Amino acid sequence: MDIQTLRDRHPDHWKRACAIRTLTLDAVAAANSGHSGMPMGMADVATVLFDKHLRFDPKAPRWADRDRFILSAGHGSMLIYSLLYLTGYADVTLEQIKNFRQWGAITAGHPEFGHVAGVETTTGPLGQGIANAVGFAIAEENLRARWGAKIVDHHTYVIAGDGCLMEGVSQEAIGLAGKQKLNRLIVLWDDNGITIDGKVSIADVTDQKARFAASGWNVLACDGHDPEDIDRAITAAKKSDKPTMIACKTHIALGHAAQDTSKGHGALTDAGQMAAAKAAYGWDYAPFEIPADVKAGWEAMGKRGAAARAEWEARLAALSPAKRAEFARIFAGTAPAKLASVIRGVKKAAVEAAPKLATRASSEKVLAAVNPVMPETIGGSADLTGSNNTKTADLGVFTPEDRKGRYVYYGIREHGMAAAMNGMALHGGVRPYGGTFMCFTDYARPSMRLSALMGIPVVYVMTHDSIGLGEDGPTHQPVEHLAMSRATPNTLVIRPADLVETAEAWEVALTETKRPTVLALSRQNLPAVRKTHTNTNMVAKGAYVLAEAVAKRQVILIATGSEIEIALKARDALEAEGIGTRVVSMPCMELFAAQDEAYRRKVLPPGPVRVAIEAGVRQGWDRWLLGQGGREAKAGFVGMSSFGASAPMERLYKEFGITAENAVAVAKSML
Amino acid sequence: MDIQTLRDRHPDHWKRACAIRTLTLDAVAAANSGHSGMPMGMADVATVLFDKHLRFDPKAPRWADRDRFILSAGHGSMLIYSLLYLTGYADVTLEQIKNFRQWGAITAGHPEFGHVAGVETTTGPLGQGIANAVGFAIAEENLRARWGAKIVDHHTYVIAGDGCLMEGVSQEAIGLAGKQKLNRLIVLWDDNGITIDGKVSIADVTDQKARFAASGWNVLACDGHDPEDIDRAITAAKKSDKPTMIACKTHIALGHAAQDTSKGHGALTDAGQMAAAKAAYGWDYAPFEIPADVKAGWEAMGKRGAAARAEWEARLAALSPAKRAEFARIFAGTAPAKLASVIRGVKKAAVEAAPKLATRASSEKVLAAVNPVMPETIGGSADLTGSNNTKTADLGVFTPEDRKGRYVYYGIREHGMAAAMNGMALHGGVRPYGGTFMCFTDYARPSMRLSALMGIPVVYVMTHDSIGLGEDGPTHQPVEHLAMSRATPNTLVIRPADLVETAEAWEVALTETKRPTVLALSRQNLPAVRKTHTNTNMVAKGAYVLAEAVAKRQVILIATGSEIEIALKARDALEAEGIGTRVVSMPCMELFAAQDEAYRRKVLPPGPVRVAIEAGVRQGWDRWLLGQGGREAKAGFVGMSSFGASAPMERLYKEFGITAENAVAVAKSML
Repeated sequence: MDIQTLRDRHPDHWKRACAIRTLTLDAVAAANSGHSGMPMGMADVATVLFDKHLRFDPKAPRWADRDRFILSAGHGSMLIYSLLYLTGYADVTLEQIKNFRQWGAITAGHPEFGHVAGVETTTGPLGQGIANAVGFAIAEENLRARWGAKIVDHHTYVIAGDGCLMEGVSQEAIGLAGKQKLNRLIVLWDDNGITIDGKVSIADVTDQKARFAASGWNVLACDGHDPEDIDRAITAAKKSDKPTMIACKTHIALGHAAQDTSKGHGALTDAGQMAAAKAAYGWDYAPFEIPADVKAGWEAMGKRGAAARAEWEARLAALSPAKRAEFARIFAGTAPAKLASVIRGVKKAAVEAAPKLATRASSEKVLAAVNPVMPETIGGSADLTGSNNTKTADLGVFTPEDRKGRYVYYGIREHGMAAAMNGMALHGGVRPYGGTFMCFTDYARPSMRLSALMGIPVVYVMTHDSIGLGEDGPTHQPVEHLAMSRATPNTLVIRPADLVETAEAWEVALTETKRPTVLALSRQNLPAVRKTHTNTNMVAKGAYVLAEAVAKRQVILIATGSEIEIALKARDALEAEGIGTRVVSMPCMELFAAQDEAYRRKVLPPGPVRVAIEAGVRQGWDRWLLGQGGREAKAGFVGMSSFGASAPMERLYKEFGITAENAVAVAKSML
Repeated sequence: MDIQTLRDRHPDHWKRACAIRTLTLDAVAAANSGHSGMPMGMADVATVLFDKHLRFDPKAPRWADRDRFILSAGHGSMLIYSLLYLTGYADVTLEQIKNFRQWGAITAGHPEFGHVAGVETTTGPLGQGIANAVGFAIAEENLRARWGAKIVDHHTYVIAGDGCLMEGVSQEAIGLAGKQKLNRLIVLWDDNGITIDGKVSIADVTDQKARFAASGWNVLACDGHDPEDIDRAITAAKKSDKPTMIACKTHIALGHAAQDTSKGHGALTDAGQMAAAKAAYGWDYAPFEIPADVKAGWEAMGKRGAAARAEWEARLAALSPAKRAEFARIFAGTAPAKLASVIRGVKKAAVEAAPKLATRASSEKVLAAVNPVMPETIGGSADLTGSNNTKTADLGVFTPEDRKGRYVYYGIREHGMAAAMNGMALHGGVRPYGGTFMCFTDYARPSMRLSALMGIPVVYVMTHDSIGLGEDGPTHQPVEHLAMSRATPNTLVIRPADLVETAEAWEVALTETKRPTVLALSRQNLPAVRKTHTNTNMVAKGAYVLAEAVAKRQVILIATGSEIEIALKARDALEAEGIGTRVVSMPCMELFAAQDEAYRRKVLPPGPVRVAIEAGVRQGWDRWLLGQGGREAKAGFVGMSSFGASAPMERLYKEFGITAENAVAVAKSML
């Protein structure tokens, strides 16, 4: 259909859609930066979705049972800002639209979770939104099964572009969603045939419809500018027993001189071309001006949602007070009161039994105690369940047949798992944790960074956290991965040494609400090192004195996780020579950095030689060895400076010099 | 077919295949570690491949025109070690097989490139091999087009498992190969229906055949234990004008009690079960014993390859001496003699013109000079060609219609691009470089790590290397990525400051043979800072004195890339106050670390206050600020400690305090 036909046939729809198009043109022009073409191309689809299908209430943007709308093609951020402004989200004012991409504005270049109510997830890195959406849909299914459809009953809609579908993570998402028959998940593919470098066909000939169908999806198509056809497709999608992909055939930068070209992807700021496009739309208003009748039409959509929400509030109110409180608690993401006593119980038992355990096995013990009192946890692993020790007996398995199951077999999909966990955490009501080998942090990185950027409490259970992995060799042995995660802002990296510290680590992770946690856990067995019980969570302090010097303190050994055992042995040897040696356990640098200076100086007083022992690279340690101002101490490091190797782990520690003998030698060389 | 039928119908084949199976069982049992089931399941396919199709010569494992065999499912490493031992590769002795997974053995847990001739690429992290293979096939096509089929004419065969196909990177690889019609690429999918956590169906219902077909592949199937059927399928695959995927229906751990189960994936070491499996095979020999006639059958396969190689050597010898020398040069990976003078020319012109340029634009200028004298370069970008400045006018575009083209439109596939570049570098004869935004290092990480682990000279052109990216915001602004790459062993990270340094950086990258290089390049324009010409490559020293103190030296400012400009301004301000200030440019920490101590102390003498300025996190800097022994200097840092934000870049630098004023204040606070 040409533009004139579209205008004539559906004049009200057309004006509403053009409100998106012109706000986009105006905001991008004001910023002299941004992406005009995608919102202009998908305006019709988004208008129909909001008008006819999406259940939302701009006055209650965090309403738990709203439909979720995810703009996976996040560069088209003016689409979502337009939608939120037009429908009446209070925070997205016209002033914010005018300040698109400026310092301090909530209308960032890409949609940022936490900036704008109505932005469900941070998108921009392509493929993330569609993969998050799988987690949103899993959370919805699980909560619906547990709470009933009167309380939880909504859809997840995604707008995805060719970039999203070319990124590999999309295949992981598609595969998982297809297997899980997530039929509340509806992906609207912006099938415009254009990427930055040219036509999609210069890099891809994939028949996307056949590809989705191959993974168990319902596949539909529509003319992405024809409101009736769009409505027909979405209506049909909602009836499927499978997730649905709707191929929406669109023109990028519709009506602009750059329509259907790569140039249309970017910032369309030429004044003459903008005027011509607006003329073609029949849009005769000032920049940023939305006629009152058009705005009213948009606001009416949100008001319909308000009615649905009121009905839902009534149903919620009919629950028992205890149930209502529980519902509020899980959506607030706060841990249950019981958690503290459960953790204390594990710690006390651990001190008594003093088991020699891999921390991954310790982690399983903690989860076995925690999962029964935290019904909101949803565990999983990227096909390493037995190795990651992530599955406890009570969880059940999440499948199309058992939606109450709380364990997800993610398949060999570390990236998809991480992205899905982000989606679950963002959905709310569930608390996801998932495992893989620490080395495969690499595969999950793009989503792990977004956990940190969004500030959501996903827990990454990263086992086999060093050369202690042994025979599988350097492809599977993390060396730089602790440093990588520690370099990432707003991320807790915790490497516990025994069952007590592992219990404390989980307590930190499960009470955290604003940050992801990376748990680095050993493959190999480790001795119990916390010999006396304390109610205090010592891991929460980041670092603490595990063993004090007996002779005059000349050395402080600082270690984490599996190297605590080595530090304690080195201390014994040094003390035997009359060299007083303190051992500091430092399971979490970020938490230690957050302590006040007095505590930090108590743990790491200036003066004694400091030696850190960790089976990873030195990068990140100098802060604690030397003090950031310098001159605090003489310091040495015992760890890795190369990739690992394939051999039994005892041999590797010896060959790479991560031994008590070497720690002693390094310490003595500096006295 | 049951085992008895297989034994009866093809007795010679059966014995050869069982040589793989029993070597695998014996080696895994000796190591008490490893993966038995995959080699046992794919033994028939591999035997037919080596017997009837693969062109190889064990006496010349690096023969340039050999077929490439890639074991993407790298955990099945005993499959490839068995094949290499049986066919007579000199380095893979029976002793090495017996020392599988032991310290010092070349038979690592996963196949490691560089350990074993015949291992074309390091695999283990799933999906990498199949994605490398796309690069191998691109290199072959390009070289065949340039050198003619008499000199380059071979296939790339891949064995991939369900894990490889579930990893997202496989989709990127499949999409790229399908578009490029890489019909010399043949993927043998080990369709055994089993993963570590259980049946594939617990996590995936994808119809893999339909999925590959959707991306433009030829798809075939065979009974993976029937040698005739396997041969038929491979023969048909070689005739296709598309890449081919052959679904080989197999039984994991064939003939063992653990056949067709998850347990079969791992180490099958039970003596009784091993004996029973061998009995079922009709294999009545001692552990590690291969009957002479079976070994002779295997060795005959390699001998056939030797004849083909002799013919090829004759064809190569018929080339002109200059052409032969050029062929040898590109496969040795050495830069042409001309490169040095070309780089010098760029540097001289740059000093004269002193252009204000983004280093990404400088990089394009260098490439425009270099690409014409280095016909082995193959450039590309993950759909950011215009932003990464990676395409020069002379390259042409690699397509099914123009195989001589030297620019690859990789699509929105950072991971697939990195993996394909690894494959190209490993194939030899070409030197790949490819671009994306520095922030999307995250997406490419698994393959970037493997570039480093394998020690291959891939060049990553990472533009938009800081908050200088501006309005696109924190999802696109690297903060921790310099630290991440620097934490990775065996990786050069170079962040040049102007055109001269960029030319030097490229010279380092293009003469390097054993390490990947990450070039961190600015989006924003930067002034020329190298004012006088020197033939010496200063970047190759890692760091050097860019501007000496005039007044008595009290401060050393150390910076990289876009922050050199800020350091120079801060120096002016400090000098104006009589505080003598040296500016050290440190484009590459790894190269500086490799200098002798005398040079390092000359550049960074103890005493003066040191302040580093870099628009990234501090992690990694303390080594240079404080010295690894500590106490060298008082030190400060001006950089990032959080994620960035969306705003024009000038504003971001100011708001995050990365300014000359702040550098001056930090320096003075320590004097």
